[in-house]
Amino acid sequence: MENIKRTIDIAAGRVKPQLVLKGGNIINVFNGEIETGDIAIDSGKIVAIGNYEGEAEINVAGKYVAPGLIDGHLHIESAMVTPGQFARAIVPHGTTTIVADPHEIANVCGSDGIQYIIEASKGLPLNVFVMLPSCVPATPFESTGAVLEAQDLEALMEEEGVLGLGELMNYPGVIDGDEKVMAKLAMARGKIIDGHGPEIKGKELNAYLAAGIRTEHECSTVEEMDERLGRGMYILIREGSAAKNLKTLIRGVNDGNSRRCLFCTDDKHPEDLLVDGHIDHNVRLAIKEGLNPITAIQMATINASECYGLKELGAIAPGYDADIIIVNNLESFQVERVFKRGIPVAENNRPLFQVESVDSSRVINTVNMKTIRQADLQIKLESDIANVIKVMPYSLLTQRVVRRVDTKEGIFQHHPSLDIIKMAVIERHHQTGNIGLGLVEDFQLRGGAIASTVAHDSHNMIVIGDNDQDMMLAIQEVTSQGGGITIVSKGKVLETLTLPIGGLISRQNMEEVNQQLKKMLAIAYETLHVNRTIDPFMTLSFLALPVIPEVKLTDKGLFDVGRFQFISIDVANEETKIENR
Amino acid sequence: MENIKRTIDIAAGRVKPQLVLKGGNIINVFNGEIETGDIAIDSGKIVAIGNYEGEAEINVAGKYVAPGLIDGHLHIESAMVTPGQFARAIVPHGTTTIVADPHEIANVCGSDGIQYIIEASKGLPLNVFVMLPSCVPATPFESTGAVLEAQDLEALMEEEGVLGLGELMNYPGVIDGDEKVMAKLAMARGKIIDGHGPEIKGKELNAYLAAGIRTEHECSTVEEMDERLGRGMYILIREGSAAKNLKTLIRGVNDGNSRRCLFCTDDKHPEDLLVDGHIDHNVRLAIKEGLNPITAIQMATINASECYGLKELGAIAPGYDADIIIVNNLESFQVERVFKRGIPVAENNRPLFQVESVDSSRVINTVNMKTIRQADLQIKLESDIANVIKVMPYSLLTQRVVRRVDTKEGIFQHHPSLDIIKMAVIERHHQTGNIGLGLVEDFQLRGGAIASTVAHDSHNMIVIGDNDQDMMLAIQEVTSQGGGITIVSKGKVLETLTLPIGGLISRQNMEEVNQQLKKMLAIAYETLHVNRTIDPFMTLSFLALPVIPEVKLTDKGLFDVGRFQFISIDVANEETKIENR
Repeated sequence: MENIKRTIDIAAGRVKPQLVLKGGNIINVFNGEIETGDIAIDSGKIVAIGNYEGEAEINVAGKYVAPGLIDGHLHIESAMVTPGQFARAIVPHGTTTIVADPHEIANVCGSDGIQYIIEASKGLPLNVFVMLPSCVPATPFESTGAVLEAQDLEALMEEEGVLGLGELMNYPGVIDGDEKVMAKLAMARGKIIDGHGPEIKGKELNAYLAAGIRTEHECSTVEEMDERLGRGMYILIREGSAAKNLKTLIRGVNDGNSRRCLFCTDDKHPEDLLVDGHIDHNVRLAIKEGLNPITAIQMATINASECYGLKELGAIAPGYDADIIIVNNLESFQVERVFKRGIPVAENNRPLFQVESVDSSRVINTVNMKTIRQADLQIKLESDIANVIKVMPYSLLTQRVVRRVDTKEGIFQHHPSLDIIKMAVIERHHQTGNIGLGLVEDFQLRGGAIASTVAHDSHNMIVIGDNDQDMMLAIQEVTSQGGGITIVSKGKVLETLTLPIGGLISRQNMEEVNQQLKKMLAIAYETLHVNRTIDPFMTLSFLALPVIPEVKLTDKGLFDVGRFQFISIDVANEETKIENR
Repeated sequence: MENIKRTIDIAAGRVKPQLVLKGGNIINVFNGEIETGDIAIDSGKIVAIGNYEGEAEINVAGKYVAPGLIDGHLHIESAMVTPGQFARAIVPHGTTTIVADPHEIANVCGSDGIQYIIEASKGLPLNVFVMLPSCVPATPFESTGAVLEAQDLEALMEEEGVLGLGELMNYPGVIDGDEKVMAKLAMARGKIIDGHGPEIKGKELNAYLAAGIRTEHECSTVEEMDERLGRGMYILIREGSAAKNLKTLIRGVNDGNSRRCLFCTDDKHPEDLLVDGHIDHNVRLAIKEGLNPITAIQMATINASECYGLKELGAIAPGYDADIIIVNNLESFQVERVFKRGIPVAENNRPLFQVESVDSSRVINTVNMKTIRQADLQIKLESDIANVIKVMPYSLLTQRVVRRVDTKEGIFQHHPSLDIIKMAVIERHHQTGNIGLGLVEDFQLRGGAIASTVAHDSHNMIVIGDNDQDMMLAIQEVTSQGGGITIVSKGKVLETLTLPIGGLISRQNMEEVNQQLKKMLAIAYETLHVNRTIDPFMTLSFLALPVIPEVKLTDKGLFDVGRFQFISIDVANEETKIENR
């Protein structure tokens, strides 16, 4: 109450605020206008706009002043750093609020993983709102560290900062009325439920909406976007590392619908975050594509705030949080300074804050595998005709191809002249001993192995190599590190990125992670001769995801996404022999 | 959960919904477009839009189909009927949701009055959301039936349907940091707080906003509106009985700001509601003034829903309540049918529902006066020069005029040739015996008296007449009716409108109330010769409101609004004699 009185006294001009930003060109997201004036800030809030003097003053004349930017949907884990380090990397780009879905760490650690993200986000100069992962496991075709049912999520729904239910990727489950999905929807009734339903339309889209789903970030065409907007969905225009939809979708934004459009990055890797930026990159791209800069800023601020019900965020007006960015101009849109609740937190692309380490004891030591012997990696074949996963250049899609391979006593043998190597996905959460084995073409890896605990969405141990010894060493290295990514060659560990938190997240900062990844990427290409049209770590991490066509490998075996069933490596075992394509 | 599954089955086309509205031109408030299609409705919800068959079907081809209309701010008491009868009158005009501030009945009955409105609104085919009256009493210059402090309101804040704190008319109290006002603001933190701050601007407006106030319905100029929109306020464009701002303000609505504009009626009397309609009238006027009809409909639906956080109201889309109106066209905008949660509730301007009476035991018998003797109405004067309230044609404003009057033994005497008559405001809540006495010019009443328990905002007994006998009879009549409005002449009660609920609300329906008021109005003009440039009942009801200039009468005496202090009737008693204007 004292604070309200002080606030009023400041606004009325009777008391000086702690800080005044003097004379900036203020972006007004309510009426789309630009107003030159002072912003009075006190106790973390914007108190007044007009002509004010402060105890401290910062001259921002000639600069543009906008609300802090908001990312409507992302997975922190994709950046492989802790929430604190993530904040240090993105806050300098002007992002002051994110809506995070801790789907990856939840697949490994369940509720503990979600709690870790919530706890590790507290006290940061970044608002981290959380959507509870709705699809853990993502599919029934793989083994996760945890299973989150409606009742598990319900317990988390009232945690501070939790807004609702995260992207409902299991859209067939929604449309078909799957019981466990229904229970989750019923549990989340009245909360925000994020969508992830590419391709659905017409009656199926109605069904998805009738179920209570209100956002979509998976649109790849203006037609998809238009239909969803018309049915009342908010559209998150995504520009991430793998999925880049902005240039296409921005053409569908107009005066009539822009209020229902916002931005997100979804999955963005360290290199892209460091080089391109974060939501500021979306804004820049949108402006470059011809969108009115103020519309672009509205999408990055007030629209996101409205979509997620984020009171007092996303505008420069009395009563709003003093999350403010100073921008050079509205063409190149370079964020020069960032204020979070009135405190300078970044300047010239550098964070002005450090982060404290938080208790991670419940999300480390997550590599919990049954002991693997080299013999476990043997692929037994009745014939020498095998189903092989063919990786595709610059794509997460794969093809199933049928190849004649070498065998010896019914066991697959790598032939140095054939680019067909072995891959394994080994359950690493509950010592089940599950191992899925497969063969991969066109990875072009020679003389070594790569292993990783980043393997969507269950994040089992995934390993690929042209010899069992190196594969075993890679597994051992990652296991001994408690998670991470490693490259080994000829009996030697070349480099490892340690990811102790859930096997997904480093304790290093984003630049360190990025440097290490770049170093390892160079080794992969140069020493192991990996196909340069793929990113071996990213490609590997998606080879276990049984929702992207055409054929993937989980700890339960080889999965044909198109036919939606497991298949044998051994073509002889298939009922119908399928033509080599 | 079963219901979600059924909903999905319907949307997916596997199960027929209870009702389909076939082939209408559907107003899409999300993208501003019009789409021809079917609306599938089940269990009160819109389930799907497209091509559907239903268990029942209604052909609406050629008609326009819009979401039910929303009134963002009104006082039900102004219509002098119960919430149930109010619903019967406005639902046929297409209003399916109102945000009501029970300020009047709260001044009489306190929390019981608010509870009555909440209870009496349950089960109606009209959503009645409640803003808690923030200013009871409205001023310290009058005696109310109740005083509502922060702690009283806090107890009501969690009641179902309560959205926040009602219009903060005491804007000087906000801007000056009055302690009790601060306590109310602190209590309502995080809820919606409605504004009522005409005239304030600049730093004072900042202060008002910094206090947490987010809406304004008192704008009378586009300049006022623009400044408030720019500071983040939602603007409610009002078209009521006394205050008509639409034609002026609608010129300030544009593509950039329309999303922050909505409609309200504030105070609308039976005659105007019955003849002009309700929010449909605002929409019609806006269209007539040249606004895009879809923008007008957005203002009457989704914008209001966003402003007040009314989830699942205000749009025709899967998951939204099936509150739907069928309109003839977008020019004359005549509402032909109304569906509330999928049930037909009005057709051709007639309600299709009855209302049940609710327990009103705690809001009746509110006329609780100390016994009044005729001598109590004597006005003692030291001189024959008196301050007189002059009523103004077609206005709620008054002027203070100084007149020579007749006296006898120091007591005011009515002179048949002088149009100066007596008025009294008698405290009627707690038997305090307070009587304020005054003189009124230009009311032109002759040969009788009018008394009423509708006297803003404290709703004490107000009586005016040219002879004490008729004034006494009028007081007795209203008292014996437990509240109401009466006209007496020459010792006889001519007509009475009984208002048993709080002395403000009838048990009759709106047409009956209106008929009675019209009859009484005719008698006032014809039999009592009242000035035809005023509505005697409305004028009388505002003569006790000490916030409208220039001079008013409360139970505590004659109040000079401009000087913000009580004055004596007797000019001789004033320290400084003021020139007759």
